[in-house]
Amino acid sequence: MESPSLPVTAKDWTSTSLHRVLCMQGGEGDVSYVNNSDCQALAITLCKPILISSLQSIKLFTSPIIRIADLGCATGSNTFDTVDTVVETLRQLFTTVYGGGSLEFEAFFCDLPSNDFNMLFRLLSEKQKVDSSKYFAGGVAGSFYDRLFPRGTIHVAVSLSALHWLSQIPEKVLEKGSRTWNKGRTWIEGAKKEVVDAYTEQSDKDLDDFLKCRKEEMVEGGVLFVLMGGRPSGSSSQFGDQDTRAKHPFTTTMEQAWQDLIDEGPFLAFALINLVRGFDR
Amino acid sequence: MESPSLPVTAKDWTSTSLHRVLCMQGGEGDVSYVNNSDCQALAITLCKPILISSLQSIKLFTSPIIRIADLGCATGSNTFDTVDTVVETLRQLFTTVYGGGSLEFEAFFCDLPSNDFNMLFRLLSEKQKVDSSKYFAGGVAGSFYDRLFPRGTIHVAVSLSALHWLSQIPEKVLEKGSRTWNKGRTWIEGAKKEVVDAYTEQSDKDLDDFLKCRKEEMVEGGVLFVLMGGRPSGSSSQFGDQDTRAKHPFTTTMEQAWQDLIDEGPFLAFALINLVRGFDR
Repeated sequence: MESPSLPVTAKDWTSTSLHRVLCMQGGEGDVSYVNNSDCQALAITLCKPILISSLQSIKLFTSPIIRIADLGCATGSNTFDTVDTVVETLRQLFTTVYGGGSLEFEAFFCDLPSNDFNMLFRLLSEKQKVDSSKYFAGGVAGSFYDRLFPRGTIHVAVSLSALHWLSQIPEKVLEKGSRTWNKGRTWIEGAKKEVVDAYTEQSDKDLDDFLKCRKEEMVEGGVLFVLMGGRPSGSSSQFGDQDTRAKHPFTTTMEQAWQDLIDEGPFLAFALINLVRGFDR
Repeated sequence: MESPSLPVTAKDWTSTSLHRVLCMQGGEGDVSYVNNSDCQALAITLCKPILISSLQSIKLFTSPIIRIADLGCATGSNTFDTVDTVVETLRQLFTTVYGGGSLEFEAFFCDLPSNDFNMLFRLLSEKQKVDSSKYFAGGVAGSFYDRLFPRGTIHVAVSLSALHWLSQIPEKVLEKGSRTWNKGRTWIEGAKKEVVDAYTEQSDKDLDDFLKCRKEEMVEGGVLFVLMGGRPSGSSSQFGDQDTRAKHPFTTTMEQAWQDLIDEGPFLAFALINLVRGFDR
């Protein structure tokens, strides 16, 4: 899961605070995020009209500089689409409202320190060589569950397909022998209620932290746009239809993969820090 | 010279515009910049009192946020020393003048896109875990001979031991058979006047571009602090004492290395884009 240049030790993986090591696969290989992010690209394309519509409501043009943060940007072709959409939309809006003028944009691509920023900057540099609509850009390495920017400095914050990653494994599920122990499993689908509750509690805390941090960082009148997976309220399954008792095929595959790992002998203990929230959350 | 994750082709090296590929050696190996930057560390330590003294003259405290740019930061332990010094000095000054209050800092570590930002962010993340004096930080990948930030947004810009790197090889010295051709040599020490003049011209243009960009980016009343190598006015040598006719040992070593490269057969054509300016410039 980590960038090739950032070796992750067993100690890192068994820590509850995975947010310093987890990231999309860097580089340009067959299993890289660059070459395996069509699904995310589709989600971003589908939500684009809603993003544009949200931006129309912005009240920002008292400042000649607009600062944009893409939170959980990863590294790939999707990375730049969101910021491009924001810049194009706001530039057009500014021209329509004010008849043009000098508006400058500063965009920040944010992800965990283990993200492949070298690749991101290389792709960005190639892109900016041919782009007519240039903006100033930077990378910010940190967790979006912490503060990333000074107070009141971000006009548009966008987080697409990223908030299902939790900041850490709930400590409870790692306590061997406790009621909340997840038996070292990598998956909460089909886990007992106590485990699901521990993840839900973590998820609630994380979402709360995310919103508190953005509240500090954002300019009044700005736009915070979030795209995240959801499931029907009350559904206990992360994927399937709650009315069917059949296991979702993805769960079956994950359980089989997990069993294979166990059968192969010594392995690192780790748990999933990814939760699809219910709509009621 | 480039980061291991960014392979450089022969085509890249023979281009005049090397500023997109040249950088300090990334990683943590024996030949990495991280482990071979004591000389730069010494220069930075020696200039620290002058930097602190310059910062005392700053007129910035109308803003609750101070933005700092380190231009040509590379990746290593030196990378953070400069920004740490700026933040500590300004925080103390603010406390002395205003008796404390809430001042936030945003620092940008700037270098070419080929710099090892993955390593930089990893080191920064480790450092920030234990630092009491935290600041918000980002990486900016680009040439400091171009604009890197929106207008009037940088309060302190620092460039230490970086401005001797030119933006490109002067095209003239690559024109085979011309009076300014440098015979594919990697070194201008001892080269004919036309070659040295071509480099000087490039150097003048670059310094001019650097200052024009900073003029746009900087806040009025801010501080631009530059440390760069120099040589006595009128001296034609990059290193030695102009009164002695003996070759500087570094030149002799470089010439020998160059001859070895030629003797070993096919090699890439490249030239040095590094110039120690005279004080009169």
